[in-house]
Amino acid sequence: MKRIESTQNSLVKHWKKLVTTRKERDKSEEFLIEGFHLVEEALKKEGAIVALILRDGVEIPHGWSIEGVHIVEVNQAVANEISETEHSQGIFAQCRQPKHSEDEFASWKKVLMIDAVQDPGNVGTMIRTADAAGIDAVILGKGSADPYSPKTVRSAQGSHFNIPIVKGSLMEWVGRVKEAGIEVIGTGLQNAVNHSDVDPQTEFALIVGNEGSGVAPELLDQADKIVKIPMYGKAESLNVAVATGILLYAYVKR
Amino acid sequence: MKRIESTQNSLVKHWKKLVTTRKERDKSEEFLIEGFHLVEEALKKEGAIVALILRDGVEIPHGWSIEGVHIVEVNQAVANEISETEHSQGIFAQCRQPKHSEDEFASWKKVLMIDAVQDPGNVGTMIRTADAAGIDAVILGKGSADPYSPKTVRSAQGSHFNIPIVKGSLMEWVGRVKEAGIEVIGTGLQNAVNHSDVDPQTEFALIVGNEGSGVAPELLDQADKIVKIPMYGKAESLNVAVATGILLYAYVKR
Repeated sequence: MKRIESTQNSLVKHWKKLVTTRKERDKSEEFLIEGFHLVEEALKKEGAIVALILRDGVEIPHGWSIEGVHIVEVNQAVANEISETEHSQGIFAQCRQPKHSEDEFASWKKVLMIDAVQDPGNVGTMIRTADAAGIDAVILGKGSADPYSPKTVRSAQGSHFNIPIVKGSLMEWVGRVKEAGIEVIGTGLQNAVNHSDVDPQTEFALIVGNEGSGVAPELLDQADKIVKIPMYGKAESLNVAVATGILLYAYVKR
Repeated sequence: MKRIESTQNSLVKHWKKLVTTRKERDKSEEFLIEGFHLVEEALKKEGAIVALILRDGVEIPHGWSIEGVHIVEVNQAVANEISETEHSQGIFAQCRQPKHSEDEFASWKKVLMIDAVQDPGNVGTMIRTADAAGIDAVILGKGSADPYSPKTVRSAQGSHFNIPIVKGSLMEWVGRVKEAGIEVIGTGLQNAVNHSDVDPQTEFALIVGNEGSGVAPELLDQADKIVKIPMYGKAESLNVAVATGILLYAYVKR
């Protein structure tokens, strides 16, 4: 088992940068996760973990399947250096950002498209919600929070290892799903019908948008339908992750 | 117009404590809000504002009705002392926590009961969601985050001034609503039906619970029905605020 005791070690510097900078995550196509729950979820996904990182005194729970997993032991100083939490559990994993092939794209029938949602917690909660609702993939457009930031990953509670997450141009994606005959449902206030007027469907692409400005008009122009969630009280709007949950559970046909 | 320039002023110390300690908020039955949006919402609610606080150079927008509102001007140092945000808008209000009379209780037909939800952001988002769904009141049981903490107030986006928020014993409240003939819907995994098997209703009390352990068993024992939201993917659960949104919009009859 490899052991690292210096915060100046180049691998530790890489881990630290994975936590603090999007640039490092984008360049290496990796991310760092922390805590028993997330690491357990990552272990279930073959090939997700580059290295499992254990602080002195932390033991791998019975029943975890760690065959073939590269383990690195670290001291308290290194653990402190890469931890994002106040009361660290002392277990981490350096993970690969999953890649997706063209073949997979063709099999996606229900997708969530996220247009410029900026809060990492919202993006993470939306990934978790899409996973729970049985959505096939999440497409993140430009201007959205990095799906692999520590806060997003924490909010998603392990769903990063369950559901494909793709970054790309939403205009291109809308074109692609429309070509496949999948209905595109936008969310907005103008020319919109009440969300409950649209029936559950076996195939759809739902587009949700920025916390303040909503979905970009050029995307809504391409949508087959625009829906809105009615405000029955005095609130002006819903949190975007809550709205996403209401819509996904309304449209997923079972 | 009153003006304060010292961070040692007793009123400034009170404001600061309203931001930082639940004890001060509970004792004084007040809270502090920050930013144009929240202050504008507070102004719409008669009697909500004790004092409107303006930093040097910040002007009250045209169209705001501030007749009879007590205004305090402060310098940058005082504004920094009481601000919770990185880029403060320099406008604040010292507000009263609204009180509710027995008469009001009798008129509530749709209520959301929150059992020990600990994250302030979740509680705030749930208050906002209940407001949007046209719920009559939110009842917060023991162990829940303080609804008047800065983070909760920010997440609720002004809904504190739209919907009654009551702190109390949920066991007592469940008894009260049952006596009024209102159906109590608990959320849980055991003895639960799928949420979509319960029809929209004109009167109901929905109980949602702690992020980890859910609703307390003794409360579920009192519920008329227990519902669960099905997990169609691999996620183990939904965020509690997202789940609350799905359920409220499923049950509110229009």
